[in-house]
Formats: sequence, structure tokens, C-alpha cells
Amino acid sequence: MIPKTHPRYESLLLRDKVKNAFKEGYLADSGMIAHGRGETFDYLIGEKTTETAKEACRAAVATIFLAENPVLSVNGNTTALAIDEIIELAKATDSKIEINLFYRTEERVEIISRMFKERGWDNILGGNDEKLEYIDNLNSPRATASKEGSYTADVMLVPLEDGDRAEVLVQNGKKIIAIDLNPLSRTAKMSTITIVDNVVRCVPLMTEIALEFKKEGKDKDKEFLESIVADFSNEENLKKSLAAIKLE
Amino acid sequence: MIPKTHPRYESLLLRDKVKNAFKEGYLADSGMIAHGRGETFDYLIGEKTTETAKEACRAAVATIFLAENPVLSVNGNTTALAIDEIIELAKATDSKIEINLFYRTEERVEIISRMFKERGWDNILGGNDEKLEYIDNLNSPRATASKEGSYTADVMLVPLEDGDRAEVLVQNGKKIIAIDLNPLSRTAKMSTITIVDNVVRCVPLMTEIALEFKKEGKDKDKEFLESIVADFSNEENLKKSLAAIKLE
Repeated sequence: MIPKTHPRYESLLLRDKVKNAFKEGYLADSGMIAHGRGETFDYLIGEKTTETAKEACRAAVATIFLAENPVLSVNGNTTALAIDEIIELAKATDSKIEINLFYRTEERVEIISRMFKERGWDNILGGNDEKLEYIDNLNSPRATASKEGSYTADVMLVPLEDGDRAEVLVQNGKKIIAIDLNPLSRTAKMSTITIVDNVVRCVPLMTEIALEFKKEGKDKDKEFLESIVADFSNEENLKKSLAAIKLE
Repeated sequence: MIPKTHPRYESLLLRDKVKNAFKEGYLADSGMIAHGRGETFDYLIGEKTTETAKEACRAAVATIFLAENPVLSVNGNTTALAIDEIIELAKATDSKIEINLFYRTEERVEIISRMFKERGWDNILGGNDEKLEYIDNLNSPRATASKEGSYTADVMLVPLEDGDRAEVLVQNGKKIIAIDLNPLSRTAKMSTITIVDNVVRCVPLMTEIALEFKKEGKDKDKEFLESIVADFSNEENLKKSLAAIKLE
């Protein structure tokens, strides 16, 4: 038990979630190392959501509301850190959720599927019992694509993505929303919209924005949503995220 | 097997060493997360030894040669990444090597002891069969201190140190040389000399400097060694290390 008074309580709590995910068998060892990389970037941006990230979240929600078939992709790290938050976002935006693992094994997929079902999310895509397609130009097993999910999706949220999948998905004509604490990464640069923030903070924020839009009836206001997207430049946003890193 | 042509070959190789250390049972899960944090800082300094780090290495070697009882402290991460390099440095500087683990277990200590012995380093301190002392003001089990090692050492090298041990050791009157890729960490700030570099690069560099000093007979030239130490400011060196981080 980490005492709540510990100055690094929040960070240590997330670290524990990641360690537990590894122990429970649904996170690869590489996922623990990846979490450490994220910790450093989060520490460098001050472990809070910047105004710049908030702008990216707004553009992301608008893009999802404009989509025909939006899909939230989840891996081991995202499940460990933010499974409940992802389900809330899917509900608020009528999105699908699909499992995609860099180090895919039947066991890991099985555990993650079960975790979603236990939380009442029955239609989890990308599972073991589904006949999956494969995305071209990507090495299996992370190339898996559910026919009604990422294979046909026009907009995808890819949190904590490692490697070049975002790039290939963009080449396939999809709009990709990345959540990546490293504003210098290839994923960050190649994506349509990159949210430089911790998944545990920005996913609930996206849900909040989505519910606000809905309350005001703006979730179906195409003109309003398109103007938000038009005002957003990922290149500019990434520059501002970089500038938010304080080395002192 | 990682192909040698992979652009991130060196980094992936180190990542594999850390994963293997975990599988072999001598590295804690937290050690994998810590490795990820280090990866990010190494990436931000360009994954090479800066001139600033070289200056710190020179001051570190001079400090070790001036010591009565220098000790190189090793943990799971250091063993995984640089066991051979640490042994070479100990030989070149007549230092002792002592095991100190943040998450100490008999099994981890046993494996690490065996690894050193297999490499011909028989007098590994801090092992299970030694009657150990404890450093005041530190929580057990990482407070362990070998009587002929860190308990009485005047100079200690502490690579990849997590937490506040460096601070307590400095308060106990020891000169502490830290190897820490994060120039903002408490360890970096509290230590007498901080080398902001990857352990796999700076430990062999220290050995090289030590052998060069010896060749020129300078390892026993107190005046020469003291002038190097006097010219070194850890505060200034850390500022220059921070400035070496390029966000682009």
C-alpha cells in the first residue's frame, strides 16, 4: 500500500497498476519498460494536462463525432491504466472498442476480453473468437483488424501505441488520434491528431467534452464540429507540447 | 534476435538484457520500469556521452584514486547492463564491489553473487553469507552495508540509484559518485559528482581514464588528482548536462 501522503502517490499508483497487469498475465514485459518511458515524459510536462493537450482533446472528440465508424484501440498498457475510462468514452461517443496487441497472445487477449465483459462491455472486438482480417504492410500479430472495427474504421483512437502502426493506418486513409506523451515520436508526428498527455487524464477529459457537446446538441452539428477540426493543426500543437517541457 | 541493421539496435539490445535479468530472477519488476525511464533520458541526450559527462568521469576517477576505501555499489539494473564493465573498473581502480538492492531478496542477492563469482570476482561484498551492518536513516532492506565496504567506504560509486540513499550517504560524510541519466533527480543533485550518461558507456570510459592515469603514473600523484577534483563543480556540470538535452 502506497500512503496517500507520498509526494509521488499518483505516479506510484499507476506503476502498481502496470506491475499488476504484468503479474495477471495480460501485459508484456516490454509494456513495463514502455511505462517507464512514459513516466519520464509525464514528469517532464509536469504531470498535468496542458492547455495544448486540451485543444487536441477537443479536436479529437469533434473528429470522433464526425466519424462513420469510430474505434478505440486498446492494448495491455491502456487496459491496465484506463479500462473504465475507455468504456466511458466509448459510451459517450458511440465508439467501438477493439483489442490490438503488439505482442499478441491468445492468453493476453482472453484476459483483456474478460476484463471488458466483466465491466459490462460485451461487444469487445479483436478477440480470439473473431475471424480477423489483417492490415497490409504491418507485421503480424499486431496487424489484426476486426472486420466491423479497425478494418473498416474511418477514425481510430490509438493510445500508447508503440511502433509504426499509426503511420500505416494513416496511409490506409484513416484519421488517427494518438495519445502519446512523447511529442517527438514517429506516432506523434504521423498521426492526424496527437494528444500529448497521460491516458489517465485525457481520456476522462475527452468524455467530459463529449458529454458537454451532447448536452448542447453540438454532437450532431456538423458545421460546428468541422470548424473545430479545421482550426486544429497537429504540427503546431506538437510544437506547443514540446515547449511545455520544462527542464529545470 | 535483433538484426544489427535495426536503427535502434543498441537500445533494443540493452532492453533485452534487462528483460532477461527479470526472467532470470535477479531484477525486480520496478527495475524494468526504471529502465524505461532511463531510455527516455538517454534518447533525449542523443544516446551518446557528452563532453560534460566526460569531465564528470575524469573527476570521478580522480576522486576514486584519492580514496582510502572506494566501493562500487551494484544493483540488478547495473548487473544486467554492465557486470563485466564494473569488474574492469574495479580492477583498474582497486575498488571493492558491493551488492545493494532496493528490493533485496535472498534469491536476487544469491544470483548476482554467483554471476560475479562466475566471472572470477570472488570477493563480492554485501552477500547473503556476510554479517551486514545497516546505514542509519534508511529503511531496510536497502540499508544493508558491508563492514569492509559501504559501511566504512569514503568514496562510493552508485550507478542507477533509485530514491534517497545517495542523500543519506552524503550526509554520512561519504563522497558519492552517481551515474544518473536524469540531471533533475534528487540523486543527481545531492551527489558529490554526477555522471549524466548511460552506465554502458561511462563505466568503460572511466576504466579507460583510470588506465591512462596509471600509465602516466598519475594515479598516485595527489596534487594532480586534487586539482582535477577542485576544478569540478557538480552544479555547473548538471546545468551543462541539462543544456545538452535537445527537444527537436
